[in-house]
Amino acid sequence: MANIYEDRRELILKKMESEGLDRLLITDPLSIFYLTGTYVQPFERFYALYLSNKGDSRFFLNRLFNVDQKDISETWMNDTDDCIGILSSYIAGTGVLGVDKNIPARFLLPLMEKHPDLKMVLASRFVDDTRAVKDSYERDKMRESSKLNDLCMNHIYFSIREGKTELEIAQDILQFYKDHGSEGPSFDPIVSFGANAADPHHEPDGTQLKEGDCIVIDIGCKIDGYCSDMTRTWFCRRTDPESLRIHQIVNRAGSFAESIIKPGVRFCDIDKAAREIIASEGYGEYFTHRLGHSIGLQEHECDDVSEANTREVVPGNIFSIEPGIYIPGKVGVRIEDLVLVTEDGCEVLNKAYRGYKYTS
Amino acid sequence: MANIYEDRRELILKKMESEGLDRLLITDPLSIFYLTGTYVQPFERFYALYLSNKGDSRFFLNRLFNVDQKDISETWMNDTDDCIGILSSYIAGTGVLGVDKNIPARFLLPLMEKHPDLKMVLASRFVDDTRAVKDSYERDKMRESSKLNDLCMNHIYFSIREGKTELEIAQDILQFYKDHGSEGPSFDPIVSFGANAADPHHEPDGTQLKEGDCIVIDIGCKIDGYCSDMTRTWFCRRTDPESLRIHQIVNRAGSFAESIIKPGVRFCDIDKAAREIIASEGYGEYFTHRLGHSIGLQEHECDDVSEANTREVVPGNIFSIEPGIYIPGKVGVRIEDLVLVTEDGCEVLNKAYRGYKYTS
Repeated sequence: MANIYEDRRELILKKMESEGLDRLLITDPLSIFYLTGTYVQPFERFYALYLSNKGDSRFFLNRLFNVDQKDISETWMNDTDDCIGILSSYIAGTGVLGVDKNIPARFLLPLMEKHPDLKMVLASRFVDDTRAVKDSYERDKMRESSKLNDLCMNHIYFSIREGKTELEIAQDILQFYKDHGSEGPSFDPIVSFGANAADPHHEPDGTQLKEGDCIVIDIGCKIDGYCSDMTRTWFCRRTDPESLRIHQIVNRAGSFAESIIKPGVRFCDIDKAAREIIASEGYGEYFTHRLGHSIGLQEHECDDVSEANTREVVPGNIFSIEPGIYIPGKVGVRIEDLVLVTEDGCEVLNKAYRGYKYTS
Repeated sequence: MANIYEDRRELILKKMESEGLDRLLITDPLSIFYLTGTYVQPFERFYALYLSNKGDSRFFLNRLFNVDQKDISETWMNDTDDCIGILSSYIAGTGVLGVDKNIPARFLLPLMEKHPDLKMVLASRFVDDTRAVKDSYERDKMRESSKLNDLCMNHIYFSIREGKTELEIAQDILQFYKDHGSEGPSFDPIVSFGANAADPHHEPDGTQLKEGDCIVIDIGCKIDGYCSDMTRTWFCRRTDPESLRIHQIVNRAGSFAESIIKPGVRFCDIDKAAREIIASEGYGEYFTHRLGHSIGLQEHECDDVSEANTREVVPGNIFSIEPGIYIPGKVGVRIEDLVLVTEDGCEVLNKAYRGYKYTS
């Protein structure tokens, strides 16, 4: 593992050089983890990795962070230091500086004020595009994370019962991850019964499962930092014909979208493939979100699967395919897999059964 | 409750007017909650409250957010919309725009590009300074949250045992909050045994408690969004004379700092009061962080209690007083209370015993 971080930094510096960018200030803690092996949650503190093709790359840290010495020059700061003053003393005040898309105004505006002749440009894409192509270590971790997620989904299917509450099921999910070697969920579990499922982002509450309810379970865990994310929809004991039909349409839309994925296909065309199936069945207006999002160290990474993204997928990309139909006040169905783009198609990372099933 | 949000917005617009600022773009989800009653976790999506003294205040939302109609004009966006293009059509391109300290570069830089003649200034302080003075509703919620935190601390004191792991205790803490009406922790519990306690931000792991260990418990919960935060340090069965002495120094430093708090005292002087006691006993270099931080809807709010903050405290401020001494590889002691500044002194929100105690 020791040198993958240096290799990744070198790769990004090369990409920057080929596009004429010398310097990049990275503040995203997960991007810094990706490039150094160090993970810190800095809260309001200044924390940055400065990558430079001039040989003066530097890691800016706070003394409160418990971080081992790394193979990169370091500047340690105290809470009472003028962090931007210190940072700006290391950065030449002319030319172009690439900055992280997430650097907050409280750091960016003072830096611009100190260096009025330095042009700031958004340049996270050099890191993001590299992170978007998972290497073999990362692919294995993503497979492992999705495998545990499959196990959890099956565990929940067999333990869910009429009368249980959404919150109880969410708690079961968290306990399962904890008991099976995950460091935790990759996002708060979504467990929605009946009409609650018509809100794609419903938060679990005291609602009890009752006969006839649809059940949407949208969950993910982390393994060594790598996130899984999957959704399945079931019905409690029985359902009505329209809900079954909706389930089959969503299932087909997702499966078909997965079937067209291979290098060179555009993200927007994958979105379109699913969207057209749903629209052709008359439910277009009830599919209210993009088809999917990239995923890795973060639950939502760059490159979403939406009509706005005209980029082509490449081998190593991992993203979700998650069509849904939401009829307000009535029913919601979403089915989601993670897929890994391969040389000639894609590998679906989730194996849990996708079709409709009835629970106890 | 209905109108406290409008009142708060009016108050902030008045403060802005008195300082000649017309317009403010707020993106902090908790500040937006404070000013509208709506809480959304927007992740990467654009989400903002635009406050304007020109009568064109506006709430920018994404269709995926499940938000009720509010008493403020709304613009709803889709994931595929050009959010900054839409935003900029509502904002005049000249003069000065106050911006949130946390607005990320991916929104700020494109907005600056669209409006090159609009000067952006950091102006969160209008909201932050208002949030820093808790009203009576908020004071009650903060008391309630700290009361539950006291109960939890006592529960843990009586249930902790030699052989238990840090993770088990952290789990007990989370379960206690859940069982007693809190919506969750205000931060991940810190449970540190023995040498682990010398790292102020140690994360609970499988370390088992053993005789002679110091025990640092730094925990907080939320009640209706309001955060508590408290630390106590105990010893398992016995300890050594130096650790006891360190405990007494830390206890005295914190108590003395609390005793000097009243309106007009500067944050830096409160920090200094505690720091001088610790330094005079020879442990100055082992007190490695600021004395405290403000707290409310967020665990760490603006105005820290540090040598860099020369502002004076005012009635309604709530912050932590948390001196610590950390001897690497050996022992760590931290004792933390929340205090509420009153008209003539302060109210200590935590009642759990501060002195040293031995556990089973």
